[in-house]
Amino acid sequence: MFTQPIPTLRRDGGGLVILDQTLLPWRVVERQLARLDDVAEAIFSMRVRGAPLIGCAAAFGMAVAMEAGTADDAGLDHALAVLGATRPTAVNLAWALNRMDACLRPVPPHARRTAAWAEAVAIFAEDAAMCTAIGVHGLGLLRALRPRGGRALRVMTHCNAGWLATAGMGTALAPVYAACAEGLDVEVFVSETRPRNQGLLTAWELAAAGVKHVLIADNAAGLLLMRGEVDAVIVGADRIAANGDTANKVGTYLKALAARAANVPFYIAAPASTFDLETACGEAIPVEERAAEEVFFVDGLDGEGCPRRLKLAPVVDTRAVNPAFDVTPAALVSGFITERGVFGVKELDGFLRGVRV
Amino acid sequence: MFTQPIPTLRRDGGGLVILDQTLLPWRVVERQLARLDDVAEAIFSMRVRGAPLIGCAAAFGMAVAMEAGTADDAGLDHALAVLGATRPTAVNLAWALNRMDACLRPVPPHARRTAAWAEAVAIFAEDAAMCTAIGVHGLGLLRALRPRGGRALRVMTHCNAGWLATAGMGTALAPVYAACAEGLDVEVFVSETRPRNQGLLTAWELAAAGVKHVLIADNAAGLLLMRGEVDAVIVGADRIAANGDTANKVGTYLKALAARAANVPFYIAAPASTFDLETACGEAIPVEERAAEEVFFVDGLDGEGCPRRLKLAPVVDTRAVNPAFDVTPAALVSGFITERGVFGVKELDGFLRGVRV
Repeated sequence: MFTQPIPTLRRDGGGLVILDQTLLPWRVVERQLARLDDVAEAIFSMRVRGAPLIGCAAAFGMAVAMEAGTADDAGLDHALAVLGATRPTAVNLAWALNRMDACLRPVPPHARRTAAWAEAVAIFAEDAAMCTAIGVHGLGLLRALRPRGGRALRVMTHCNAGWLATAGMGTALAPVYAACAEGLDVEVFVSETRPRNQGLLTAWELAAAGVKHVLIADNAAGLLLMRGEVDAVIVGADRIAANGDTANKVGTYLKALAARAANVPFYIAAPASTFDLETACGEAIPVEERAAEEVFFVDGLDGEGCPRRLKLAPVVDTRAVNPAFDVTPAALVSGFITERGVFGVKELDGFLRGVRV
Repeated sequence: MFTQPIPTLRRDGGGLVILDQTLLPWRVVERQLARLDDVAEAIFSMRVRGAPLIGCAAAFGMAVAMEAGTADDAGLDHALAVLGATRPTAVNLAWALNRMDACLRPVPPHARRTAAWAEAVAIFAEDAAMCTAIGVHGLGLLRALRPRGGRALRVMTHCNAGWLATAGMGTALAPVYAACAEGLDVEVFVSETRPRNQGLLTAWELAAAGVKHVLIADNAAGLLLMRGEVDAVIVGADRIAANGDTANKVGTYLKALAARAANVPFYIAAPASTFDLETACGEAIPVEERAAEEVFFVDGLDGEGCPRRLKLAPVVDTRAVNPAFDVTPAALVSGFITERGVFGVKELDGFLRGVRV
């Protein structure tokens, strides 16, 4: 059983404690969230991030709201609205809030606090189990892709879809952790993932787990795939439309194009809760546009080891656009690695019927 | 006639003065290069950069060597070797050095200093004229691509192939400057171009020229192309193989893939000197691997406005690979914009016969 080196989320009395991911990889700092607005701010500003973990955080946010605020229907509606407005793309957020609503609405207000904590804990535990199952199913794919000649199996990923993004061992990185646990020689190409550099989180968590990895600029993915240096690409997802079109961190689509051109398998690893039956296709997925400042500024450590924010670009005469996600057409996806198994786009309908039931 | 706002290179007595591009966009600093090794360092460390300007700098570097060192055959060979070893991918470097060699070798040593300066000045002037001609030919393409409905024509570029990269008005940006001079409403999507952020140079030079532009993370190019927000992609080139495969700044290939998928024209703008008849195809082009430090560190301004270098990633347990270029297959190129006109891959043989003559 995989145990997170540091819990990404945990209950602490009537509040929530998160690992503040905006300070990683430089500082490991936990943050207390005692009020609904604290949880909403933590999601919006990406202190907690990763589609599965956003869902978990929203569920715990409902419990915090029932604890610290009013638990009548108005309070319930208010908490659902505040948390629902934090980020638009990851469907896990809406999924978790719908589940909390369905759990809490029928319960009398005085019993909602206890019910909310219990349901949030259940969602968190299910997420961890889901990660483990994704790891098991993905491991079968990786075993089959082992290269001849003794070199390491090389997996490319984008953004961070590891344990930091979930309640468990991750989604895209779950097969990697499962393969390493089995003794497979695996190396991960970690894409920097500008503008927020979540690739540095991935490098940090892989280093912490002792997994071999190589950091690359996002721009280098095409050449490495073309040269045959990558055996598989595995990424997470924020929302998968009913036709299989997949929204994930911006830049994912470019890797999918390059993987297809190089005939390298491109996998999406995500739980069933990431599939959105209400969204027909990629064009209908709302893509979050984030602040231009994310493009103009970068965080790091200065020569004295102090965390600092640098301005990269003059902002006087230059504007920026900053979509946080892009959409990979289903046709570029070799397979979806879910907690229920691996399936291709053609098998999507059958899988979704299962989700619907 | 386009005049560079600040000369990218100029002769100063027996030495060379360059605009130090590693300090842009924050500080406009010229740098004196009095010795051969200074010029070689400036090319290697990208104080002068851009394939055409690298060729010009190497030519002037030969003149500096003849001025400051010995001008006998041993001195000539030494200077050619030192400058030739600075950067492997841009063929303009080898092209300029070959031309200087052909010019200087037959000349007696005592006359080589004067001959070298004259030939370097000629190469520089020809480069400027070539840029102007590329602008004229590219303008015809842009006129035809003007969107209906009154919105600006949107051109996406990568890295910096503007006046900063040449002796004149640039290669990829020459059609943009020509279009603006004619009154066309043009807006440029500027890709950040990690790890060295040459997109910030492009934003700076476009701002200086009053051209509308939008900075984007490299990762955002796919979504913008997919959404139909881009009318054309124009990039420069460091070496074009005989079959049309094109080496350019790493990340170019990903844009070419996304442009093709979106049915948006993808143009390479480059002078005839960038075509390398000795290299059959892209696989034979040497791709420069630069230091991992370029991925781990970034330059910018701190809160007090002081230039500073930040560490982005822990380097203890993480390594990086950092190819500086990638190769775009000829099949993805809609056309080559050269000083002799625009032509497609199918017309390449005829064009190259012209170059050979």
